[in-house]
Amino acid sequence: MTNQENSYKQIGSSVRRLEGRAKVTGQARFTADVPVPGKLLYARLVTSPYAHARITGIDIQAALACPGVVRVVLARDLPLLPDATASRKRKPLAGDEVLFAGQPVAVVLGESEAAATDGAALVRVDYEPLPVASTTRAALAPDAPLVRHPRELQGPAGHGSPATAPAPDLPPNVSSRAENKKGDIAAGFAEAVVIVEDTFRLPMVYQGYLEPMACTVVPDPSGHLTVYSSTQTMFDTRREVAEALGLPVRQVKVVLPYIGGGFGAKAVLLEPLCAGLAQLTMRPVQLNFTRMEDLAAANPMTDCTIKLKLGAKSDGTLSALKADIIFDTGAYPGSPMGFVALLLSVAYPVPNFEITGVEVVTHRVGAGSYRAPGLPQMIFALESQVDKLARALNIDPLTMRRRNSYPDNLSAGAVLDRLEKHSLWQQRLEKRPNEGWGMAFAGSANSIGPASAACRLNEDGTFSVITGLADLSGSATSLAMIAAEALTTDLRNITMTLGDSDSAPYTGATGGSRAIYTLGAAVQRAAEDARAQILAIVADHLEANPDDLELLDGAVHVKGAPGHSVTLQEINAMTGGYEGKHEPVLGRGKSANKEFAVGCYVHLAHVRVDPETGEVKVLDYLAIHDVGCAINPAEVAGQIHGGVTQGLGWALYEQMVYDEAGALVSGSLMDYALQTASMVPAIQCGVVGIPSREGPLGAKGIGEPPIVPPAAAICNAIYDAAGIRLNEIPATPERVYSLLTAGKTTAIPGPGI
Amino acid sequence: MTNQENSYKQIGSSVRRLEGRAKVTGQARFTADVPVPGKLLYARLVTSPYAHARITGIDIQAALACPGVVRVVLARDLPLLPDATASRKRKPLAGDEVLFAGQPVAVVLGESEAAATDGAALVRVDYEPLPVASTTRAALAPDAPLVRHPRELQGPAGHGSPATAPAPDLPPNVSSRAENKKGDIAAGFAEAVVIVEDTFRLPMVYQGYLEPMACTVVPDPSGHLTVYSSTQTMFDTRREVAEALGLPVRQVKVVLPYIGGGFGAKAVLLEPLCAGLAQLTMRPVQLNFTRMEDLAAANPMTDCTIKLKLGAKSDGTLSALKADIIFDTGAYPGSPMGFVALLLSVAYPVPNFEITGVEVVTHRVGAGSYRAPGLPQMIFALESQVDKLARALNIDPLTMRRRNSYPDNLSAGAVLDRLEKHSLWQQRLEKRPNEGWGMAFAGSANSIGPASAACRLNEDGTFSVITGLADLSGSATSLAMIAAEALTTDLRNITMTLGDSDSAPYTGATGGSRAIYTLGAAVQRAAEDARAQILAIVADHLEANPDDLELLDGAVHVKGAPGHSVTLQEINAMTGGYEGKHEPVLGRGKSANKEFAVGCYVHLAHVRVDPETGEVKVLDYLAIHDVGCAINPAEVAGQIHGGVTQGLGWALYEQMVYDEAGALVSGSLMDYALQTASMVPAIQCGVVGIPSREGPLGAKGIGEPPIVPPAAAICNAIYDAAGIRLNEIPATPERVYSLLTAGKTTAIPGPGI
Repeated sequence: MTNQENSYKQIGSSVRRLEGRAKVTGQARFTADVPVPGKLLYARLVTSPYAHARITGIDIQAALACPGVVRVVLARDLPLLPDATASRKRKPLAGDEVLFAGQPVAVVLGESEAAATDGAALVRVDYEPLPVASTTRAALAPDAPLVRHPRELQGPAGHGSPATAPAPDLPPNVSSRAENKKGDIAAGFAEAVVIVEDTFRLPMVYQGYLEPMACTVVPDPSGHLTVYSSTQTMFDTRREVAEALGLPVRQVKVVLPYIGGGFGAKAVLLEPLCAGLAQLTMRPVQLNFTRMEDLAAANPMTDCTIKLKLGAKSDGTLSALKADIIFDTGAYPGSPMGFVALLLSVAYPVPNFEITGVEVVTHRVGAGSYRAPGLPQMIFALESQVDKLARALNIDPLTMRRRNSYPDNLSAGAVLDRLEKHSLWQQRLEKRPNEGWGMAFAGSANSIGPASAACRLNEDGTFSVITGLADLSGSATSLAMIAAEALTTDLRNITMTLGDSDSAPYTGATGGSRAIYTLGAAVQRAAEDARAQILAIVADHLEANPDDLELLDGAVHVKGAPGHSVTLQEINAMTGGYEGKHEPVLGRGKSANKEFAVGCYVHLAHVRVDPETGEVKVLDYLAIHDVGCAINPAEVAGQIHGGVTQGLGWALYEQMVYDEAGALVSGSLMDYALQTASMVPAIQCGVVGIPSREGPLGAKGIGEPPIVPPAAAICNAIYDAAGIRLNEIPATPERVYSLLTAGKTTAIPGPGI
Repeated sequence: MTNQENSYKQIGSSVRRLEGRAKVTGQARFTADVPVPGKLLYARLVTSPYAHARITGIDIQAALACPGVVRVVLARDLPLLPDATASRKRKPLAGDEVLFAGQPVAVVLGESEAAATDGAALVRVDYEPLPVASTTRAALAPDAPLVRHPRELQGPAGHGSPATAPAPDLPPNVSSRAENKKGDIAAGFAEAVVIVEDTFRLPMVYQGYLEPMACTVVPDPSGHLTVYSSTQTMFDTRREVAEALGLPVRQVKVVLPYIGGGFGAKAVLLEPLCAGLAQLTMRPVQLNFTRMEDLAAANPMTDCTIKLKLGAKSDGTLSALKADIIFDTGAYPGSPMGFVALLLSVAYPVPNFEITGVEVVTHRVGAGSYRAPGLPQMIFALESQVDKLARALNIDPLTMRRRNSYPDNLSAGAVLDRLEKHSLWQQRLEKRPNEGWGMAFAGSANSIGPASAACRLNEDGTFSVITGLADLSGSATSLAMIAAEALTTDLRNITMTLGDSDSAPYTGATGGSRAIYTLGAAVQRAAEDARAQILAIVADHLEANPDDLELLDGAVHVKGAPGHSVTLQEINAMTGGYEGKHEPVLGRGKSANKEFAVGCYVHLAHVRVDPETGEVKVLDYLAIHDVGCAINPAEVAGQIHGGVTQGLGWALYEQMVYDEAGALVSGSLMDYALQTASMVPAIQCGVVGIPSREGPLGAKGIGEPPIVPPAAAICNAIYDAAGIRLNEIPATPERVYSLLTAGKTTAIPGPGI
C-alpha cells in the first residue's frame, strides 16, 4: 500500500479504527445487545416451508398455552398501513398467500427468547401448496403462475434504475423492462473483425454480514417509539417506520448501535414490523433474525443472466455491444437490472449498442442490494468478453483496456500504468504448468447525496463531530482524521458522536461508496467552520487579525510570536457559563456534491487449476484502485481486502441454491460456502490518487469497487491456466472439473495475458 | 395581562405549554421515572442526626446481612477526586466529621428501594457530638468552634460575587467579606433630613420544587457513564461529574428528563456521588432524595441579617446608605452575600454609600441559590426603609421612587406609569379598617452567557429545534414560538428537541432569568438561518432571486405570483437521499449577549390584618413587570404568579427553623409552611415592554423578578394597615400579634400609600 505524497499530518497515515478496541474486546453493543428500558418481549417468527401456498388456517391455541408466550400476531393484527406494492417492509407477514419459502407468517411474542421459540414451534399453519415459479425460466414460461398481481408491480423500481420503464403492458411476471440503445448496431458489428457472444450466469448470493438483521423498538406512553436497528440508514428508517404506522416523523426516534456489516442489505426491512409489534403491545419488542432466517428471508442479491455480444476492430477498439439481461428479483421488485442496462453502455466508449433488460418476479425472497449492485455481474460478463477479444486480436489485455479508455479518463490511465509497473505484471510472463493469470478492469462512480455534520468544541479542548452516520467499515475514523487535519490536532482529541434521528444533522444512508465522499466533505467544512470561529474569537480577544493567527496542537498562536497563545480550554471558557463573552464554537458543515466521482481499478489474479480435482487456488491477487485520496490507508486496504474476499466468494464458492419447489437448499452457513480466513489468499493493494473535485481532500469512494473485478479476473486466469471458459460462477471444483473433462482441456493458443 | 401591539403571528399570543399535556396526564417522565437499561441498584442514605460530631465508628454488618442489600458505601470507598474546598458535591459523604444535621454518612445500595431503606436503618454509626455553631451569632462568638478549616475556605466564592474578597486573614468562621463604598458617607447623612436605620432578618427558606433532587447513573462496560439528572445545567453537570471522577468529558453523557422545578437549587449536587456509586458497582444506580432529605440536605437559601441605614433629602432623593450584611452560608460557602453588597449600591443612585458584608460558616446545610439570589433579602430591607422615608417626608411612595430613578431608566418610568394608571392604585385611597396598601419597587438584570441552537428541516416539512435546555418553566414553548415566528409556520410544526450533552449545541444553565434572553436569541438566529437556506434552495431551484421569495405556512412562494410555490416537503426531498442536489437545511444560531438587560417592576399589595389573631390576609396583589417583549403572555403570567406566590411564602409563611443543637425542626412539609393553592390570593399581572437590545424580539428575563418585591410590599402594607413594622419575616400571626400587642398598635400618621 503506497501512501500518497502530501503535507498532511493525519491524512494518509494509517491509524487503527476508533471503534476497534470496543469491537475486539466485545464491549461494542450491537442492536441485539443494547439493553433497553422496560420488560422486553422477544419475537420469534413462524415461517413458511412452502414457496407458494395458500394459508387456509392458523391455529395459535397451543402456542398461546405455552408458558411465557404473551401473544401471537398475524398479518391482520399488525397496525401497518399498506403500500401500493405490498412491499415486504409494509406487509411483513404473509396474509392469505405465501410468496417465498421462509416468508414470515406469524410472530410469537414471549417473555423470553426460549418461550417465543417454543411458542413458534406450536403455531399450526395449514397451507394449500400452489404452483411454484422459482426461476426466471419458470416464471417466463407461458403457463407460469402469476407471482404478483400486476397492480403491485407499479411501484417505484429498484436502485436508481433511470433506464427502467415499469409499464402496465409488461408480460406476466415481468416487473420492469429496460431498453438502452445508441448508434447502428448492425453497422457496428459489421465493422468488427472479431465478435464474441456468450451467456453469463451468476447465482443468487448472500452478503454474509456478521450480524443478522436485528431490531428493537421501545414504545413510550406518549406514543413515541425508539427504534434501535442494525440499519445503514438512520433517517430513511425513521421516515419508513413513521409512514408505516401513520405517525409523524417526530414520534419516531432511530438509534444506531454498532452495526456488524450491511453491504447494502440493511435498508429497512424488519423495523416497521417490530415497531408495529411494540405499538400493539406497548412493550419493548426485540426481533432478531437467526442466521437461517437471514439467509432465507433477508435481502440477498438475486441471480441473473447476461447474454453479451461484443465486437472489436482490429486495433482492439470496441465497435458494437448487444446485451440481453434477465434479473430474477424474487417476489419483490428491486433488482439492479436497470443499473446494469444503463452502465453496460458506458463502461467503455462503444459507439453502437443495444441493451435490453427484464426484471422477473419469482417465488423467491426479494432482491436486495449487495456492494456495487449489478457491477460484479456486468463486469464478469464484460471483462470475460474483452479478454476473449484481446486474445483473438493478439493484443495484451492491458493495451486492450488502454485502447478502449475514454480519452479524458486520467483514473483509468493511472491504474493501468500502476499495474504495468507492478512486479506481478512482469511475473505473469513466467509461465508454469496449470497456472494462469487474469485481469479485469472497471471503473465506477460513487453515489452522491446531501450530508451535514456539526463540530463542537468541548470544555477540555477536544472536539465532538456529530453526524448520523451508520459506520459500516471504519468511516468514522476517516471522518475523525479529516476533522483532526482541519483542526490541526491529534486524532485522540476528536470524538465522533453518533446522534440519534431526533438531533443528528441529516446524514443519508451509508451506501454507494459515498460516506467519505459526501459526509466527509460536510465534516471537513464543519471542522473548518469551527476553526474559523476559534480564530475569530481569539482575534477579538487579542485584538489581532485572524490572518495573523494559527490553530495548532490545541492552542491558537500568534504567528511569529511564540509564547503568545490561547489554549482551546481557555477559548472554550470564553464561550460558556455565565461569564463567557463569545458565542459557542459550533461548526456546521454541509455538502451536496454534484459529481459522481469515477474511480477506476484493475485487478490481477494468478491461479493454479488442479487438473485432477478442478480446484482453483489463488496464488497471487493484486488490486489497484484509484481512491482519489487515501484518508486512512489502512482502512482503504481493509475495504479492498474485504471487497476482494467477497468477490472471490462470488468467483469460487458462493451460491444460494433453490430446489424446484423453491426451497432454499443452502439455507445455513453449513451449506452456503462463505470463506473462512484460511481460504482467503494474500491480497496486495495498490492505490493511486486522481483527486475528485468534491470529495474531502480529493477522496473518492472505495467501499464498493473491490468486489467488482474478482469474478472476471479469476475466470480469465482460469482460462489462461486451463483453457476453459467459465461463463457461469462460482468456479467450483465440480464445475471446473466437468469443463476440463468435456473435451476442452487444450488451452486455446494465444498471446495469453 | 396586556399584550404588546405588534405584527407578529405567534409572538404575544398566549399558548399552552408544549409539555403541559404530558405533565398533567402523568406521562412525563421525571428522573426517578425514567426506565433505564440494566438491573437498577437503589441508593438510600444514612444521615447524621447531629449537626457537628466526630464519627468514631460505622458498623455495616447488620445492613449487609439484610436481604437485598448489595453494598454499603462509606466516604473512603468513593472514587471521587477531592477538591480544594471539600465541597459537598466532591465530598458528599461525611468522613471523620459531620458538619450539619442531615449530612449523608453512608449509602446503602439495594436491589429494591425497600431493601436499601431497610439496610440504611441497620447501619450503626457511632457519633461523638461536638460543640455546635448553628447560627451566625454563635459562629462569630469568640469561643465558637471552627466550622471549617481556613484552607477549605479559599476556593471560589459564591454567586458572581465580584465584591467578595476571600482572604487568608479572615476571622474564624468568616468565609468571605465584601466592602463597597463610594462618596462621603458622613456628608451624605449630614445632607439628609430624614434617616432611618433598622436591622432586617430573613430566615433560611426552601425552594419547594415539586421534584426532590434525583439522579440515576448508568455505566457501560467501556467506562462511559450516562447521567440522568434533575439538573438545571446539562453541560456543567457533565463537566463536574467528569472532573469528580477524573474522566474526560467525552466519557460522561448527561440526559435531562423532565424536571420538576429547580429555582436555582439544582446545579450539581448528587450527580458525582451517584456516578461514583455506578462506577464502583458497574451497575445503574438511582439516588433520590426523599422530601425530608431534600429539606435537610439540598440547597436552601440560608438566612441573613441586613442592617440598613438610609438618609433622604427633603425632596426624597437618597443621600446616603450604610449597610452591614451578614449571610449565614451553612457549612459550605456560596451565599449571595457578595451580590447583595454589590447590588445594594446601585438599586438607587445614592451618591454616598458604605457597605460591608460577611459570609459566615455555621453548622447548617450549605447555601444554595434561590430565584434571584439575594434580591428578595435586599429589597425587603431597602424598600422597607424607602417606605419609611417616604412616609416621614410626606411623599407618596410612587413619587418617592420616581425621584430616585436613574434618569435614563425607561423601564422604571414605564412600570411606575403603569401602576399609576391602574385601578388598584386609585382604590388604595378608599381606606377600610385594618386594611392597608404597600408597594415595593425593584429592577434587576437577567444574566448573560453564550448559547447555541440548531434548527433542522424534517421530511414532513416540520422543523426540529435542537438545544440543551433544561426547561424549568415552559421556556421551550416560548422558544418554539420564536422559531415558528421566524419560519412563519404554525407552532405545531416546531418540535423542540432536547439533545443530550454528547450532541446538543452548547446551552448554559437555566438560571439568572436568561433562558429566553440568551438561548432565545440563538434559536431565533437558527430559525432565520434555516429560513435563509430554504429560500436559497428555492431560488436556485426556480432560478429566482431570494428576495422575490417568501416562506409562508409551509411553502415558499414567489411574491406576487400565487400558485408558484414549493412546499417544505418538496424542499426537504431536494436535500436528502441519493438524488438530492441541495445541502440539508441545518440552521445554526449562536449568541453571546453582552448587555445585562435591566427590567424594572413594581408590586402593590392590599392586606387586612386581623387585630385579634395577627393573621395577615392578602386581598389584592398587583405585579407590574417590564419583560421587554412577552413572547408567550400566558407563560409570563405563569412566571409572575409563581414568583409572587413564592415571595408571599417568604413574606408570610416560610422558614426553616433550627434548634440550638443545629437540628432542623421544620424538616418536613408538615412543619415547613409551603402554601397550598387555596392560600394564594388572586394575583393581577401587568406587563410593559421596553425592548432589550439583544434579547429575541426585545425580550428580557422574567424568571426571577416576581419573587423579589412581595416581602417588602406585604410588610409595607401591614404597616399601612396596622402601624407595625416587621423587620423580620415571615409575618406569621404570632409575630404580627406580638407586635400589635407590644404597645405599637397606633399607626404612625403619614401620607400612607
